[in-house]
Amino acid sequence: MTSARLETFADGVFAIAATLLVLTVEVPDLGDNSLAHELAKLWPSYVAYAVSFVTIGIIWVNHHTVLQQLRGADRTFLFINVFFLMCIAFIPFPTRLLATYVRTGDGRAAAVAYGLTLTVTAIFFNLMWRYAIGGGGRLLRRDADPVEVDGITRSYRPGVPMYAGATIVGVFQAEVAAVLFGVIALVYVLSSSVFGREESALP
Amino acid sequence: MTSARLETFADGVFAIAATLLVLTVEVPDLGDNSLAHELAKLWPSYVAYAVSFVTIGIIWVNHHTVLQQLRGADRTFLFINVFFLMCIAFIPFPTRLLATYVRTGDGRAAAVAYGLTLTVTAIFFNLMWRYAIGGGGRLLRRDADPVEVDGITRSYRPGVPMYAGATIVGVFQAEVAAVLFGVIALVYVLSSSVFGREESALP
Amino acid sequence: MTSARLETFADGVFAIAATLLVLTVEVPDLGDNSLAHELAKLWPSYVAYAVSFVTIGIIWVNHHTVLQQLRGADRTFLFINVFFLMCIAFIPFPTRLLATYVRTGDGRAAAVAYGLTLTVTAIFFNLMWRYAIGGGGRLLRRDADPVEVDGITRSYRPGVPMYAGATIVGVFQAEVAAVLFGVIALVYVLSSSVFGREESALP
Amino acid sequence: MTSARLETFADGVFAIAATLLVLTVEVPDLGDNSLAHELAKLWPSYVAYAVSFVTIGIIWVNHHTVLQQLRGADRTFLFINVFFLMCIAFIPFPTRLLATYVRTGDGRAAAVAYGLTLTVTAIFFNLMWRYAIGGGGRLLRRDADPVEVDGITRSYRPGVPMYAGATIVGVFQAEVAAVLFGVIALVYVLSSSVFGREESALP
Repeated sequence: MTSARLETFADGVFAIAATLLVLTVEVPDLGDNSLAHELAKLWPSYVAYAVSFVTIGIIWVNHHTVLQQLRGADRTFLFINVFFLMCIAFIPFPTRLLATYVRTGDGRAAAVAYGLTLTVTAIFFNLMWRYAIGGGGRLLRRDADPVEVDGITRSYRPGVPMYAGATIVGVFQAEVAAVLFGVIALVYVLSSSVFGREESALP
Repeated sequence: MTSARLETFADGVFAIAATLLVLTVEVPDLGDNSLAHELAKLWPSYVAYAVSFVTIGIIWVNHHTVLQQLRGADRTFLFINVFFLMCIAFIPFPTRLLATYVRTGDGRAAAVAYGLTLTVTAIFFNLMWRYAIGGGGRLLRRDADPVEVDGITRSYRPGVPMYAGATIVGVFQAEVAAVLFGVIALVYVLSSSVFGREESALP
Repeated sequence: MTSARLETFADGVFAIAATLLVLTVEVPDLGDNSLAHELAKLWPSYVAYAVSFVTIGIIWVNHHTVLQQLRGADRTFLFINVFFLMCIAFIPFPTRLLATYVRTGDGRAAAVAYGLTLTVTAIFFNLMWRYAIGGGGRLLRRDADPVEVDGITRSYRPGVPMYAGATIVGVFQAEVAAVLFGVIALVYVLSSSVFGREESALP
Repeated sequence: MTSARLETFADGVFAIAATLLVLTVEVPDLGDNSLAHELAKLWPSYVAYAVSFVTIGIIWVNHHTVLQQLRGADRTFLFINVFFLMCIAFIPFPTRLLATYVRTGDGRAAAVAYGLTLTVTAIFFNLMWRYAIGGGGRLLRRDADPVEVDGITRSYRPGVPMYAGATIVGVFQAEVAAVLFGVIALVYVLSSSVFGREESALP
């Protein structure tokens, strides 16, 4: 199977998981409050929507960076991808949890659920890359640049410890952890688009 | 990354956001009324569905017009697109708000929410185009026709003020604003398909 | 814009609308009944799901037959497609209506809603084809076979009257209309796959 | 129609059905319990989500194996695919049933519903392959390797009896059947990725 085939399926899951996030934000029932008041109260939902959407967007960009280095996919690689995409498609659930409970006494459980999902996602992402470049570069394009491959490997290293760290923070402080999830996404976008090399500029 | 890659993801988000709009229209519970009566009462939902679907369709057509002028995408462009698509995927929420509340005392908050979403969408759309043609045409195809590029730039100029204007109207008059959202979409479809040049007629 | 571009978006809408149909079938709450009993009672939902899924599948096949004859798309054609896809994406709503109400006193309103949706879909489908072949074949491939084009035109002629007819039946008899919707789909599948020419067999 | 066309639609349905599975897992309402407690109680939903996601992933991999052997698709093949995809898109419903009811007195009805869906899916999958290779290889690529075609035919043989068997177990024991559905998926992933030939490694 070519990696092009995998991309169609993966891009579908990325796009759908990201778009389903909108179901996080529910049309409020009004009691005695005005709609304006209720919409203002929903702000954790908007933030959760935005953070998860951008996070999925970042992972989508990285997933393509990986596939660009490969010359094909074997079945083991496909199934690692299925497990990885299973995590991506799950993200709308902890996003809703976090939006609903972050400011309540149950916020820490929601933050841990969110953090665990992203930690496991990052683990599968690294597993996918390690498998592809392992065994003497078993799936790497024959003309892959070793310096670039090393750079990619290094750039993926912080993902798991960062999300694991934020998850541990969530055990004690839900709102701090929630801010960290947002900061991680923001730092990534800024560092990779403003300061980063733009090696993928040309087709 | 080629712009082809971005198109797959973007087309996914466009198609899913548009199709999820159908969840705006909910199967009514019947009290003492007949289903025919309840279905007739749902007309704001049908109109909201149609206006948002056509609006997303218009933005989809414009997004392709942009990508056709580009020779590739860098990371900054990708992330502007992620933020832009985050707005597109959000549209089903204010659509449901508007359908539910337009004819109530809370209609103005719903109209403002709808208008703000489209205004921010238009801002990101313009940002995307400005970034692509800025820096001496940093992402433009080398054979891009300057006259056509200028024409595109001019054609995108009214989007933000029009939606911002309709949003301000919504602060005072929900139903007038709702009509404006529909009129903007209708005018665009008519002007671009009946009176417009059809420059994209051939592959 | 090439017709390939349109296909990505259209196939997305077709696939999502068809897959969202599963939300027609809701997990039942059990009162005093067993789940087996409740699942058996849901049979109209299963039938509605199947009929709508196959109907969308048929329209998808026909949409490709159309695009195969075209050399490109202009903006008018694109916007006719947007309106056409707006109807396709709407189908899950009347499907849920029909599944919920077909066997109640309100079944006729549900059948009419379902029939109207498919009638309008068929009208836009014909409009799309008429526009493409009108004006001296304005969008037709230059090597399109006139005999085949005529055959396609003829094969699309019965769609609108058939669905309009079934809708009128629905004004009087919900269940008879529902059976007709299924029979139309079944006859199409049988006639086109078992008895029909298989002209699209080769790439 | 080329098989590439079919792949776009099929990949859409696969990706959407898999991603919609996340709606299986609902944000719990808290009564007197903590969120942590409620999330722990949801474990059947997580397992059901994972088993169904991986199962759909496996069928997706197999579907591509089939299409790789074909030189095109005729209308009969397309409609068999429509029926097959109708089963795939249905999977989220019995998944929710199983997650909700597996540990209750109604678990057996849920397990049977789940098993029947996968059995019928497997039947349509085999029908699709049999039709493609029947009639002297009516849709096979002219250079298809007969040994590989035979290997594929053999590898699809156990699907129907395995799922039918697990369904029959479900008539008596819901939880045992649920474990079997997971084991079938796991065995397939392990056998095909760890022990299996990796014939699709190169594009």
